[in-house]
Amino acid sequence: MSALPLVVTPGDPHGIGPEVVGKALRQWTGPVVVVGDRAALAPWCDRLVPVDRIRPVPDGVAILDPGDDEAPVEAASIALGVRACLAGEAAALVTGPIHKARLARRGFPHPGHTEYLAALCGVERPVMAFVGGQVRVSLVTVHVPLRDVPGRVTEELVLHTLRRSHEALRDRLGRGAGRIVACGLNPPAGDEGLLGTEDRDVVAPAVARAVAEGIPAEGPVSAEAAFRAAVRGEADWVVAMYHDQGLAPLKALEFAANRVPGLGERSVNWTLGLPIVRVGVDHGTAYDIAGRGVADEGSLLAALRLGERLGAT
Amino acid sequence: MSALPLVVTPGDPHGIGPEVVGKALRQWTGPVVVVGDRAALAPWCDRLVPVDRIRPVPDGVAILDPGDDEAPVEAASIALGVRACLAGEAAALVTGPIHKARLARRGFPHPGHTEYLAALCGVERPVMAFVGGQVRVSLVTVHVPLRDVPGRVTEELVLHTLRRSHEALRDRLGRGAGRIVACGLNPPAGDEGLLGTEDRDVVAPAVARAVAEGIPAEGPVSAEAAFRAAVRGEADWVVAMYHDQGLAPLKALEFAANRVPGLGERSVNWTLGLPIVRVGVDHGTAYDIAGRGVADEGSLLAALRLGERLGAT
Repeated sequence: MSALPLVVTPGDPHGIGPEVVGKALRQWTGPVVVVGDRAALAPWCDRLVPVDRIRPVPDGVAILDPGDDEAPVEAASIALGVRACLAGEAAALVTGPIHKARLARRGFPHPGHTEYLAALCGVERPVMAFVGGQVRVSLVTVHVPLRDVPGRVTEELVLHTLRRSHEALRDRLGRGAGRIVACGLNPPAGDEGLLGTEDRDVVAPAVARAVAEGIPAEGPVSAEAAFRAAVRGEADWVVAMYHDQGLAPLKALEFAANRVPGLGERSVNWTLGLPIVRVGVDHGTAYDIAGRGVADEGSLLAALRLGERLGAT
Repeated sequence: MSALPLVVTPGDPHGIGPEVVGKALRQWTGPVVVVGDRAALAPWCDRLVPVDRIRPVPDGVAILDPGDDEAPVEAASIALGVRACLAGEAAALVTGPIHKARLARRGFPHPGHTEYLAALCGVERPVMAFVGGQVRVSLVTVHVPLRDVPGRVTEELVLHTLRRSHEALRDRLGRGAGRIVACGLNPPAGDEGLLGTEDRDVVAPAVARAVAEGIPAEGPVSAEAAFRAAVRGEADWVVAMYHDQGLAPLKALEFAANRVPGLGERSVNWTLGLPIVRVGVDHGTAYDIAGRGVADEGSLLAALRLGERLGAT
C-alpha cells in the first residue's frame, strides 16, 4: 500500500458524488484527503476533519477546501487534486461525477474530466479507459457525435491509443505481454471490405505499426469478437474506436456482474497518458436520485481500490 | 408444440453449419426437415432420410435436396424453406450461417439473410432482431458502414423498428405491454444536445409517435442505460440504432453467460416483419474451425427452441 494518500474529489455538489464519497469512506481504511465542498459532504460523512494542505488524518476524513481560485468548486477541487499528485503529495486522484452540460452552461471550457485533466497536466492527447474486472477498454474517440467519428479515427490516433494502452498494461498492471485487441470501426470490422474501407486503410496499418514496435496487438476484429476474447481471458485489453462500441458492452457486463456475484467488478474510469494516476467513477451525477440516500457507492469503492493499486507502482 | 415441422437450412456447406446442424439434431426430438446439401451434412448426421417434399420422418432426419433452380445451394435451400413456411407446410425457418462475402463473390445480390428473406417474402423493410435470454435487441440499421449510419437513421425507420418490435413482443411472445427502450444515436443520447442533434430531432420524435400509437416505448437513452434496463428486467426490448451498438453488448452478455450458468441463453437472430417465422444462428461460418468437429451447436439449439416457440403462436 502506498504511504501517500489518495485525493478524492466528490464532483458536482448537487449530484450523488458527496453521498457515494461519504458511504465509500465509511468502508475504506486507507489514507485519503477529500477536496471539495464541505457543506455538500457533511450530511453524508460525520468524521470530517478540515485540513489546510494534503494531509490524511488518523481520526476521520480529511477535507480540504479548494478555495475559489478556479470556480466552480468541482473544477477547483480537481485542479487542486492534480497539483497534489504532480507535487508527489498524493498517490492518485479519485474523482466523483461532474455534470458536463451543467458545467458548460457555467462557462467551463472543457468537454469533460479527461480533457480538463489533460489541460491541467499539459498533455495533448490523454486516453480514456475503463477497467471492469478483467475487461479493460480504451477509446480512440470519446465525446464525439457519431457522425464525426469516422473522420476522427486516424491511423495516428489509433496507434496512440494502442501505445498508451500497452504502457498502462506494462507500467501499471505489470503485464508487459498483455494482449491488446482493436475493434474495427465498421461492422464487423468492415466485413472483408464490403462495409467501409477504414478498417483496411486506417485501423489495420495502425495495428501493424504497433506490432512492429513490439506491442502485442491484433485486429481489427468485430467488436463482438473483441469482447468475446476479453470475457474469455484471451485478450487483456480492448481498444474501441468510439464511445458506445466500448462502453455499451463493458457496462452490460458490469450490470450482469452485479446480478451474478463473482462474474466481474464495477467498472472504473482510468485516464491514460497523464503524468499522474487518475481514476474515477464511471457513472453520472444522477440528479434524479441525489439527496435521497439510495445512491450506490460501489463504483467509487472500486475506483479507490484501483487508485491505490495503480498509485503504488 | 406445433405439429408442423421446423425447416432447417445448414447454410454454407463449407462452414460449420452442417456440423452444428448434425450435432443439434442428435439432441432435438421435435419434427424437422433439413433442406440442404446432403453430402455436406452426411459426415455429421447418420440418420439422414431423403424426402421429396417437406415431411418429417419418424426414424431419422428428413433431408430435402433443394435442387439447383437457384444456386448457390445455400440460397436455394433458404428459398425452398421460405416457400414451405409461406405455404403453411412448416412452422418456422431455422437457418445456419452463410458467408456474405463469399456469396457476393459468386454474384449473390443480397447483402445477407435478412435482405434475401425480405425479397423472397415481398417485404420491403424487415427488421433484424436478436434474442439472448431476457435481453432482446432490434436494429434500425444493420449492414451499413459506420460513416453512413447517421444518414440512414430516419424518424420513419426508427418508428418502423419500434412498431415491428412491439408486434413481436405482442404477437409472438405474448407481451403486448412489453416495454421497449430506444438507444440514442450519439453518446450518451446526445448528452442534452452537446453531442449531435439526431437524438432530439429524429429518435425522440419517433419514440413520441410510437407512444402516441399505444406502444410502451421510451428513449432515446444512452446505450448503457438501455442495456442496464434490459439486464435488470426493467425493459423487455432494446432498439439499437446500428449494428455494434446493439450486438456488442448482447454478445458480451452471451459470452459472459456461457461462463456463468444461469445468467442467460445463447442469442438467436430473429427477423421481424416477415409473414413467416425465421430464426437463425447468430454466428458465422467459422471456416477456420470447419470440419474439425469442435464447433458449438448451442446457438442452433437455441434457435430451434425459439423457432418452435414462435412458430407455435
